[in-house]
Amino acid sequence: MARRSVDVPALVESAGAGSPRAVARLISLVEDGHESLRQVMAALAPHAGNAWVIGITGSPGVGKSTTTTALVGAFRERGLRVGVLAVDPSSPFSGGALLGDRIRMQDHALDPEVYIRSMASRGHLGGLSFTTPQAIRVLDAAGCDVVLVETVGVGQSEVEIAGLADTSVVLLAPGMGDGIQAAKAGILEIGDVFVVNKADRDGADATVRDLRHMISLGDRTEPGLWRPPVVKTVAAQKVGIDEVMEALDKHRAHIEENGDLVQRRERRVVDEIETIALAALRARLGHLGGHDGVTALARDVIAGRTDPYAAADRLVEQLGT
Amino acid sequence: MARRSVDVPALVESAGAGSPRAVARLISLVEDGHESLRQVMAALAPHAGNAWVIGITGSPGVGKSTTTTALVGAFRERGLRVGVLAVDPSSPFSGGALLGDRIRMQDHALDPEVYIRSMASRGHLGGLSFTTPQAIRVLDAAGCDVVLVETVGVGQSEVEIAGLADTSVVLLAPGMGDGIQAAKAGILEIGDVFVVNKADRDGADATVRDLRHMISLGDRTEPGLWRPPVVKTVAAQKVGIDEVMEALDKHRAHIEENGDLVQRRERRVVDEIETIALAALRARLGHLGGHDGVTALARDVIAGRTDPYAAADRLVEQLGT
Repeated sequence: MARRSVDVPALVESAGAGSPRAVARLISLVEDGHESLRQVMAALAPHAGNAWVIGITGSPGVGKSTTTTALVGAFRERGLRVGVLAVDPSSPFSGGALLGDRIRMQDHALDPEVYIRSMASRGHLGGLSFTTPQAIRVLDAAGCDVVLVETVGVGQSEVEIAGLADTSVVLLAPGMGDGIQAAKAGILEIGDVFVVNKADRDGADATVRDLRHMISLGDRTEPGLWRPPVVKTVAAQKVGIDEVMEALDKHRAHIEENGDLVQRRERRVVDEIETIALAALRARLGHLGGHDGVTALARDVIAGRTDPYAAADRLVEQLGT
Repeated sequence: MARRSVDVPALVESAGAGSPRAVARLISLVEDGHESLRQVMAALAPHAGNAWVIGITGSPGVGKSTTTTALVGAFRERGLRVGVLAVDPSSPFSGGALLGDRIRMQDHALDPEVYIRSMASRGHLGGLSFTTPQAIRVLDAAGCDVVLVETVGVGQSEVEIAGLADTSVVLLAPGMGDGIQAAKAGILEIGDVFVVNKADRDGADATVRDLRHMISLGDRTEPGLWRPPVVKTVAAQKVGIDEVMEALDKHRAHIEENGDLVQRRERRVVDEIETIALAALRARLGHLGGHDGVTALARDVIAGRTDPYAAADRLVEQLGT
């Protein structure tokens, strides 16, 4: 792939001034693992750190896009600038086509204060754990007051991505995920706010009851700890969105007061730094002594002369020299 | 989690002698990232390197388990020892319960020459890219002639896991994945043998035609290159399994002749070594200067005094000292 040279300072200035094109271009540089990334991140650094990052996770079919769209509307009513990252770890391809994104959330397609972007794992470097925090940083530095990160499914990668958020919303639908399913999927631990969407369907109250019960059995019952609320919505009809916003505000106030917000952000940046460091180390390992260096070790393993751990040790040793 | 001490030499000897309990225990050590892993792999090294690793990938509902079960039966008829790893990257939990595995493939539950094991990403170290090759190594060293690695879905992680195999089988079902879908999912590149299962359903011939057409458009049409066959099956009735076996044998003979088998195995072991090396480096990064070291860097990033790339550089520098 040919790499165009990029006028990073101009791009960062345009993004800060609210140019959707500049924001889109910066996120593309992140997705592509472009050589200018290092320069981009240095230029963005002084401008980032203000956005409230809200993760929205749920299985396919629970109504994530509809709910996200409704929340975007609610934040826009407050006059806030909103960024949306729709992350799909199950697809090896980027869904980042502008047209697709616009169709996806057409309510807000023409609003210049709303940035919407899809991202998928392209297998670059550390994958989504590498690109997502940096894309959040772009939206943050571009002046977004709120960044909504929507992830599909409830697998391991989604749990990791939810860990990036200041506030994590877990979406369920009646009959799709009862409390026990949620517990098995590991989402009871990551949810700060639970939303049972499509609450006009049968079984909504049972799902709410189940969830509350499972939460009460969890380890978050001590006084002073955040007790995740369970809110019912019919997002397609904007029913219950005010209650979700109220729950989000309360959680935000809670983590601001008890210092959790600072800690979550530190942990997020620690992860970001470590992921970049590991990508750099991985690149170095790949080049170490040329392709032949690692391959020679692999041949020793295949022949039974050594084992993968001992070979890995030798590889790591070579890094230091 | 308390870590029991393990008599590694005894365990490896029992596994080599065909004890299913010993094999299961070794794979559990792999899944847990047990401290004895290094010793386990060293003990296994001289015994591994003989198994034919066959990957079986497809979307949910195409009949992977049924097809795998049928293939296990076919390999057993040849008198071969067979290992099965069912890998589910979408679940953060292990499905490794013996009972579940037995129910899953009850045809072979009582056959001492068949080892069946489910694995899921638990978030240890490098996840499934870390555990899968090592679990394959256990089955290989335990004398399995064939290891079938069954993975769910067609996302990025599945493509990576398919890359581990000597021979990759991609399963589709009529109406679920036509050629274009397959192309988009990136599976045209990874499939060595395509199987259209549930071929008694409407649209099977259209799916086969589509696939053949897409394959003919691909970059594997040069003379001497392997041209992936497309086989129709009704695995539940064992229809077409002989044809799949024939296709597998042909592919095996092809990659043995042209040297691809050796190359695939080398690449697999290179990946394995690099993944272990990276996990070791990640552990070191995490401990570097104590938790406070990385956190101090994170605080500088949050305050806008530096950026994540510059912070990562400093972290990597500290590794060398």
